[in-house]
Amino acid sequence: MTVIDIPEDSLFGLANLPYGVFSTPGKKPRVGVRVGESVVDLAVALGDDVFTQPRLNEFMAQGHARWVRVRQQITELVSGDVPDDAVHPVAEVTMHLPIEVADYVDFYASEHHASNLGRLFRPNAQPLMPNWKHLPVGYHGRSGTVVVSGTDIVRPNGQRKAPDEDAPTFGPCRRLDIEAELGFIVGTGSELGAAVHTADFATQVFGAVLVNDWSARDIQAWEYVPLGPFLGKSFATSISAWVVPLPALEAARVPTPVQDPKPLPYLQEGEPWGLDIDLAVSWNGHEVSRPPYREMYWSPAQMLAHLTVNGATSRTGDLYASGTISGPEKDQRGAFIELTWGGKEPVRIGEEERTFLQDGDEVTITATAPGTDGTRIGFGEVSGRILPATT
Amino acid sequence: MTVIDIPEDSLFGLANLPYGVFSTPGKKPRVGVRVGESVVDLAVALGDDVFTQPRLNEFMAQGHARWVRVRQQITELVSGDVPDDAVHPVAEVTMHLPIEVADYVDFYASEHHASNLGRLFRPNAQPLMPNWKHLPVGYHGRSGTVVVSGTDIVRPNGQRKAPDEDAPTFGPCRRLDIEAELGFIVGTGSELGAAVHTADFATQVFGAVLVNDWSARDIQAWEYVPLGPFLGKSFATSISAWVVPLPALEAARVPTPVQDPKPLPYLQEGEPWGLDIDLAVSWNGHEVSRPPYREMYWSPAQMLAHLTVNGATSRTGDLYASGTISGPEKDQRGAFIELTWGGKEPVRIGEEERTFLQDGDEVTITATAPGTDGTRIGFGEVSGRILPATT
Repeated sequence: MTVIDIPEDSLFGLANLPYGVFSTPGKKPRVGVRVGESVVDLAVALGDDVFTQPRLNEFMAQGHARWVRVRQQITELVSGDVPDDAVHPVAEVTMHLPIEVADYVDFYASEHHASNLGRLFRPNAQPLMPNWKHLPVGYHGRSGTVVVSGTDIVRPNGQRKAPDEDAPTFGPCRRLDIEAELGFIVGTGSELGAAVHTADFATQVFGAVLVNDWSARDIQAWEYVPLGPFLGKSFATSISAWVVPLPALEAARVPTPVQDPKPLPYLQEGEPWGLDIDLAVSWNGHEVSRPPYREMYWSPAQMLAHLTVNGATSRTGDLYASGTISGPEKDQRGAFIELTWGGKEPVRIGEEERTFLQDGDEVTITATAPGTDGTRIGFGEVSGRILPATT
Repeated sequence: MTVIDIPEDSLFGLANLPYGVFSTPGKKPRVGVRVGESVVDLAVALGDDVFTQPRLNEFMAQGHARWVRVRQQITELVSGDVPDDAVHPVAEVTMHLPIEVADYVDFYASEHHASNLGRLFRPNAQPLMPNWKHLPVGYHGRSGTVVVSGTDIVRPNGQRKAPDEDAPTFGPCRRLDIEAELGFIVGTGSELGAAVHTADFATQVFGAVLVNDWSARDIQAWEYVPLGPFLGKSFATSISAWVVPLPALEAARVPTPVQDPKPLPYLQEGEPWGLDIDLAVSWNGHEVSRPPYREMYWSPAQMLAHLTVNGATSRTGDLYASGTISGPEKDQRGAFIELTWGGKEPVRIGEEERTFLQDGDEVTITATAPGTDGTRIGFGEVSGRILPATT
């Protein structure tokens, strides 16, 4: 038996206990939970077949009451002796995409980000569209290209047309960007025709991950009218390997910024679901931004209520992301197009300067939040390295 | 043994042989093929377990060479004696969603439709956006709400704001519409980073279905800037129950309309994949439109090449639809917002008039195409009835 060591300053203490899918050499991917610098194999430790699955979907589909019981079981387990063969050093496992993604939706819930992008994409118009403060604007993305942190990102090819060009040309993206976001994973879905109330967020959503919504700004700018982003986004969306369960975020709950005008009743919430999460974006190892999630205008409970208010089902494995997290300050912007103001104001990366991503560049997004026991909890990271375009 | 009767004028003769998923009382959904007014149970007739699945995905994933062999086997089978217990009258079976939908993409490939909607949604601007003739504009929809023909459609609730209103209100959609489309189902997918060539369309796409992309025009008009349609579409998308295999459309192949400017190389095709398919839209039993698919500007091979040119994977079960099929004439328009010019020119439905859909209304879309043996083949139908909004 092993007693798992949890350093006092660990971001993966008992207040966190995130779920992931891992493998060890010669064995199939299965469900584990991270504790300190260890991964606990839940199938071995709890003897439950649902954790032999290569994704969390089957466990998530068992519902909220079951998630509560298992979290309690894990807490008891890792507070005492754990069977030796259930414990692996995190450095020795390979992490996999933790969920099979059903539908993927991306929102646009930061007022600072939406305003900045409005100024950059539509310089002669009001930065915020008239609908923006009435509803959480969002769109569907490509669920088949959601990949786990650490997956290399091939620079996409596509049509690009600069304002001073007569016609589009085809070739590698010249303005490759990131979007630092938080993503929410639906654990149990809803029926066709049944809207989900904001109060149901806490029992239907399983947990949260970091998201990097890689964005080809030149492709996007040319294609996106009138039906929205498509190939400028669909080449890859990275998520962190560890899913932080919603109860681990209890101490991070804060009110959203004041919402004025008052939202329509279906978007009102009895309890706040703003989240005091600090993100950090690092570019080739140099921190360039610290986006504050607490600045997000719309809460994730409001996003879920909105996306089902027309009767659309939600399903186990649905992933919906917040949209880029940007704060009011320049060094709080979660996309490079904002940070470098459309590429006009380069940022320093050590000895170098950057506007958009170059081949070989690596971006890592991390995040922490207050835990329920006075410690801080961590999301791990979502990272990716840019490979040259295929020819 | 049974010899299946195929009436001379049947749209389901040997040149068609569409696949579907059906059930009979007390038995699980499984794969069948339609011949005349009969459904042949493929698991029973061919003794292959892949057809006991409740969807076509496993069979599709076996790839093009296998589809060719099975089509040949079925042709031989139904030309002779078929085991009695493999044959069911089509009137006595229940049809199910034939595929598990991976990603759902909706294009916008009719020049007439895009121009009409541009005039209606943006009356003070050029109807076609500058990108429209350079690339097949499209966006991702919600795969979780794709339903089979015959499923009732609950009128969606949502935010609507008429131009003369100061603020949005919440309630049932007041401008509920259809979009008559053709959908293409990816049989075998592509790897991340590998663009699909237009020439690969014929071996990677399994077949085609009719699509009704139900649209809440008032919700859509208010929400769609700048990220595209979302809740105005995501409440339901209906598809026909029978998947017409691509080889059955061989005689329907025609060149697309002249594409000017000439598309970029990745969108060029060696062989034409325009399709001479005649659709018919009936509203409460009265035919109101005959959209001609041959008028579509972009071909489905071009759509597939475009949606993967950035390296995005395609997957078994991906569904991509053409967008509304509208011809140049008023009675060829595939959406009611065009047919009634934004509700200003009602259409006659027998003794009644209509602009948008009322509760209880039923819409049925059918289609036929020339078959390879000189007969015509049919798509069956995609139909749905409107139920009142939930309160």
